[in-house]
Amino acid sequence: MSEVDRTGGPGAVDVPSGQPARVATPGPGDPRLGRLSLNQRTTAGWSLREAIDGCLAAGLPSIGLWREPVAEVGLDTAVRWVQESGLRVSSVCRGGFFTVSDPDAVERAHAENVRALEETAALGAATLVLVPGGLPEGDRDLLAARERAAAAIERLVPEAESRGVVLGIEPMNPIYAADRGVLSTLAQALDIAERFTPQQVGVVVDTFHLWWEPGVREQVLRAGERIVSYQVCDWITPLPADTLLARGMMGDGHVDFASFSRWVAEAGYTGDVEVEIFNADVWAAPGADVVATLARRYVELVEPHLHV
Amino acid sequence: MSEVDRTGGPGAVDVPSGQPARVATPGPGDPRLGRLSLNQRTTAGWSLREAIDGCLAAGLPSIGLWREPVAEVGLDTAVRWVQESGLRVSSVCRGGFFTVSDPDAVERAHAENVRALEETAALGAATLVLVPGGLPEGDRDLLAARERAAAAIERLVPEAESRGVVLGIEPMNPIYAADRGVLSTLAQALDIAERFTPQQVGVVVDTFHLWWEPGVREQVLRAGERIVSYQVCDWITPLPADTLLARGMMGDGHVDFASFSRWVAEAGYTGDVEVEIFNADVWAAPGADVVATLARRYVELVEPHLHV
Repeated sequence: MSEVDRTGGPGAVDVPSGQPARVATPGPGDPRLGRLSLNQRTTAGWSLREAIDGCLAAGLPSIGLWREPVAEVGLDTAVRWVQESGLRVSSVCRGGFFTVSDPDAVERAHAENVRALEETAALGAATLVLVPGGLPEGDRDLLAARERAAAAIERLVPEAESRGVVLGIEPMNPIYAADRGVLSTLAQALDIAERFTPQQVGVVVDTFHLWWEPGVREQVLRAGERIVSYQVCDWITPLPADTLLARGMMGDGHVDFASFSRWVAEAGYTGDVEVEIFNADVWAAPGADVVATLARRYVELVEPHLHV
Repeated sequence: MSEVDRTGGPGAVDVPSGQPARVATPGPGDPRLGRLSLNQRTTAGWSLREAIDGCLAAGLPSIGLWREPVAEVGLDTAVRWVQESGLRVSSVCRGGFFTVSDPDAVERAHAENVRALEETAALGAATLVLVPGGLPEGDRDLLAARERAAAAIERLVPEAESRGVVLGIEPMNPIYAADRGVLSTLAQALDIAERFTPQQVGVVVDTFHLWWEPGVREQVLRAGERIVSYQVCDWITPLPADTLLARGMMGDGHVDFASFSRWVAEAGYTGDVEVEIFNADVWAAPGADVVATLARRYVELVEPHLHV
């Protein structure tokens, strides 16, 4: 049971900060929620059913799905639930992990990505998010790993195109360059994406990954119609001990969401805005409190700057 | 007391990995040590006296000094000890922290940097390493902080020039962009450095900070004679909980020292190579074992690639 007042009234408390809510919680029907999407990993304790119901209860029109919780209930059930809910699926996470070098592993990764594309299409999502992958064990050739990622994306393009799915390359904070994502800047992701049409390959713009990138405004504008997903969460310090869970609630850290969101809007992006927070403290909080907090922070810090 | 065999013979053990030494420990007079410098923070438990003696005992010809341990014994004593030792001072750490915005704080930072320049000149070092500084508390305007850093460097140039010291801008891994160094890539550091002559402003090339940077080879070559310090340590995963102590011994992580060192050599750099490792496990080991290990790893992984 949550002790948090989710009305966003005088007693409402933000999670995980424990600070008083600064704005009233927007509810179902509030037009400011029209583009807000809950990435499933933000409420990792919720099953797919709970996440769908949580979005509906809070008035969020969209959800970013992960393959694992979809697999738990089975693809057919997930598709039916999503269709019945009326929610949009803003993206599916995730394909990628392209940097393996063993030939058998390369084939397995490709086949897994094809399955991910099939699931993305079945779920009615326009985009499969691609996490590039890190360096194989003992391998220090970052340049070669980046080339393998680009080659694997190229090979995947016809598979995506035939299923009506756009591939979304997610450049990742250099903190993950060794073990998760060898593509480190939006500029680098665009250099690969631009070998293809925007209908084939786009980019995922995530504030946690990109807030520090020199010239990122120019890169966001360069991305333009290639932006297939805008994901928001904060960079907090001190960084939590587990760097994979280092993301913060918007407003708890150092990211300038006003500027970043304005650049994304200037680039022409009109799609959903996913809140994706991997954080042990967020995960320890009741899901409904997390959604209430992120909705408040979104309408305070992000949404006002999405209009140009 | 150390239980480690520092001869690098069959029983020698690397710290902090605990793995058997892979090469014999190079000793005093070994020509491969001719450019190796111990950054004082690698043996943080050592006083200045111990660090000087440790370098001499191990046959290292150079040391990278920090202002705090120098201040502990007093500048005059430090200068005398260094001169008597015959060691080169490869750099002095550190100036910088330019990103304060309060006018009084700006003046204090400038005055502190002038003092750092005076100490650098007195110690006979050619370079003062500049750590740019992070975002002030509650400030999310990264672009403005970067501009303040550039402006503060410009103001410092005549002070450095009149003392015969080259300013060395140290671009820092984006993991520190919020709280320590707002300049995040070598390209960004060079964009600032190139407003001045190479005799005025150079760059510090540190593998931990830059190993992931897209196009870093081209940036190292672009840097050319502006490289005032080459610092080596590894990027290890999982990242230690305290990110300020996240650096690893060369060979324990993901950095391709062969390629990186070759690029630095191709850029024309012929100066000292500093080993700078902030790591709680390294600090917990006896200083002499740390120096023996880094000397072995240096002659194995770095030194062979410094010749073009």
